[in-house]
Amino acid sequence: MVILTLNCGSSSAKYQVYDWANKDILAVGVVERIGLEYSTIEHKANGKEEYHAEFSSPTHKEAIELIIRMLLDDEYGVIQDLKEIGAVGHRVLHGGEVFKQSALVTDEVIEQLKKVIPLGPLHMPANIMGIEAARKAMPNVPQAIVLDTAWHQTMPDEAFMYAVPYEWYTKYNVRRYGFHGTSHLYCAKRAAVVLGKENKDTNVIICHIGNGASVCAVKNGVCVDTSMGLTPLEGLVMGSRSGDIDPAIIPYMMENTGMSAKEMDTALNKKSGLIGLCGKSDRRDVLKASQEGDLRAKLAIDMECRRLKKYIGGYATLLEGKLDAIVFTAGVGEMARHIRLGSCKGLEAIGAKLDEHKNEVCFSRNGEFVISTDDSPVKILVIPTDEELVMTEDAYALMNGTYDVHTNFHY
Amino acid sequence: MVILTLNCGSSSAKYQVYDWANKDILAVGVVERIGLEYSTIEHKANGKEEYHAEFSSPTHKEAIELIIRMLLDDEYGVIQDLKEIGAVGHRVLHGGEVFKQSALVTDEVIEQLKKVIPLGPLHMPANIMGIEAARKAMPNVPQAIVLDTAWHQTMPDEAFMYAVPYEWYTKYNVRRYGFHGTSHLYCAKRAAVVLGKENKDTNVIICHIGNGASVCAVKNGVCVDTSMGLTPLEGLVMGSRSGDIDPAIIPYMMENTGMSAKEMDTALNKKSGLIGLCGKSDRRDVLKASQEGDLRAKLAIDMECRRLKKYIGGYATLLEGKLDAIVFTAGVGEMARHIRLGSCKGLEAIGAKLDEHKNEVCFSRNGEFVISTDDSPVKILVIPTDEELVMTEDAYALMNGTYDVHTNFHY
Ligand SMILES: Nc1ncnc2c1ncn2[C@@H]1O[C@H](COP(=O)(O)OP(=O)(O)O)[C@@H](O)[C@H]1O
Ligand SMILES: Nc1ncnc2c1ncn2[C@@H]1O[C@H](COP(=O)(O)OP(=O)(O)O)[C@@H](O)[C@H]1O
Repeated sequence: MVILTLNCGSSSAKYQVYDWANKDILAVGVVERIGLEYSTIEHKANGKEEYHAEFSSPTHKEAIELIIRMLLDDEYGVIQDLKEIGAVGHRVLHGGEVFKQSALVTDEVIEQLKKVIPLGPLHMPANIMGIEAARKAMPNVPQAIVLDTAWHQTMPDEAFMYAVPYEWYTKYNVRRYGFHGTSHLYCAKRAAVVLGKENKDTNVIICHIGNGASVCAVKNGVCVDTSMGLTPLEGLVMGSRSGDIDPAIIPYMMENTGMSAKEMDTALNKKSGLIGLCGKSDRRDVLKASQEGDLRAKLAIDMECRRLKKYIGGYATLLEGKLDAIVFTAGVGEMARHIRLGSCKGLEAIGAKLDEHKNEVCFSRNGEFVISTDDSPVKILVIPTDEELVMTEDAYALMNGTYDVHTNFHY
Repeated sequence: MVILTLNCGSSSAKYQVYDWANKDILAVGVVERIGLEYSTIEHKANGKEEYHAEFSSPTHKEAIELIIRMLLDDEYGVIQDLKEIGAVGHRVLHGGEVFKQSALVTDEVIEQLKKVIPLGPLHMPANIMGIEAARKAMPNVPQAIVLDTAWHQTMPDEAFMYAVPYEWYTKYNVRRYGFHGTSHLYCAKRAAVVLGKENKDTNVIICHIGNGASVCAVKNGVCVDTSMGLTPLEGLVMGSRSGDIDPAIIPYMMENTGMSAKEMDTALNKKSGLIGLCGKSDRRDVLKASQEGDLRAKLAIDMECRRLKKYIGGYATLLEGKLDAIVFTAGVGEMARHIRLGSCKGLEAIGAKLDEHKNEVCFSRNGEFVISTDDSPVKILVIPTDEELVMTEDAYALMNGTYDVHTNFHY
């Protein structure tokens, strides 16, 4: 039996096929340019050559049919019969306050997801289209949704509420939801394993730093705070997103430039962060520019590290001195040693001491590392994240009737 | 010789007369409703009865003339002759990047202040009117400006820049300025005295919590970070201001409700914070409501404390484990024991242990207290702020030619 996972973006569909019995990835791929004049597919099956092609895929329906054809293909495929697919796991951006964990898709579930569209107007329609197309193409296969927000639903109200007019919450659902939940859940559980502790006794701060980035405070195995909010804009300095700013900057700039609310949203999401500061967002490019004397690139690195360090210190106080470890994950967290170094400078204040040598030699996405000094009261870990694995396992468990809250089972 | 200090708001002018030789306040007062059909004055001279009256004061000019008449008044006055006024100190909201410390007023200084009006459109015109009116009324008296932003000009660029398009800084002066500078300066210096250290060796975190509230990280006696930003909206949960939110909430709410940028600014500055959450902003009222079972009031208290705690933890990492003390000041910081208690819960993570009994018995604005346990590595202090004293001393020193950067002299 295989588990298929699907991640549908506005114009793309990523997929992975996982062999449950052998715990092995059989194929990964992506369809891009969905809805444009021609679409592309990149498909890579284990031990086979990579396959690229152009197709016509006006909607996610054709994309998913195409993916299924590839999986069954004589030359590039990995299964003989659709019946081999035991379950499908769909990545969904937003579950509002309804979904506190992964769930099997029903008509009612889809109705509930549709209600959440205003909270993720760019992603949710694509997520829902993907689910509907997969249900049509595989009507007898159980489908599960795995939500970026679900993990964070354990936050107390003092963490998820904003100090804005109360009716913004009751009427417009304005609250902190948090994102990257699947990754934070994975890392929280792996951290418990690395630390040799039970999930429910583990207190960690997880820094998921990719192009998008968020920090999460985990107390007794569950999320108690996170840096992303109503949307993925809030919090850290990211590749192209501002993270935290004085909110008054928005009306100030709108009044001074005549920018619209939409243009402002775009500026803060796409033209800010590292891009806004120095014109680059890939941390390798920013580092290189900084080393070559580009002062704005240096500023961008300093700001990224400083913001992260402040969040870590802030979250340490929420854990009341019981912090076990700080975890770095995702592209930057796993690979960008200079960002880890800069962010950890000063963390002695909360009992975390980086071993600079261990940090320096750790830049693999294939292993879990401890990069704090042996005598550091708080450990610093690097854990390669694996959101696909969580999606696969949740889809399997839901299909199998063995799904449980994550604090009750181990990887 | 006396020093007069003036604090001109959009429709008010507060004043204080200080006897330099005897280190004594001779009179305080306020003119309100400037520009309305009638204005009021409240005047209180040492050892004399309080005086209330209605006057006509269409502009700050008449208000200041009125204040001078009161000071010279036979019955309620405190001086015989204008010549006794050695200097006037004016509180000014914003000095942009030009003013890094207090300065004597010249024509050029006024021109420079006018350039900063866009950064403080509500306060700066009144501040400037007050200065001009005082110069006219007392042409031979040296006048000094004391700026809310000046103290924060020592922040490094990684602290004062936002991760937004770089030209927002170069073209529109969008950066973190910080406010409450006079209070933070006063508390930093008093903390050094209480700790028995030199200013330049003192590392403290100052929590100025009044109706407006800001935190300041002080490293080696100077400001390295603060929570207020381009405007006083950013940072903590305040009486009526939101502090930090997901910036995306603004375009989201504007799109969903049709609010304008101006209305949004008003909502975040006047209808948010504690008012937005529970309808009250005075901490005594909020506490009472919470004790009577009002869950939103409880939420407001929890959120105020949590936000502050997170800032303190974040700033502790900037001071790299060399934090000497946390200082509470201003109305709430000095008086609201429950806010201090809630904010300090968890600060063991950074080595600060509150003595709950000492905290409970400390609610006077007339003394400096240590409220941490005797064995707490990081002290927790309550220091009643005194912005008027800084204004008085700066005005005196500038007039006298003895003004120096604050790290070089003591209170
Ligand atoms: N070797 C490396 N050194 C430094 N940074 C790296 C390295 N490899 C990847 N990165 C950073 O990781 C980012 C992508 O992170 P990832 O988590 O894969 O992305 P996403 O957030 O898009 O899922 C890249 O933009 C780059 O900045
Ligand atoms: N005894 C008290 N207990 C609790 N809170 C108090 C007490 N006295 C004053 N406060 C709080 O202090 C606030 C005013 O602080 P202050 O620094 O004087 O104000 P501002 O920021 O306007 O200068 C009040 O709104 C109230 O919330």
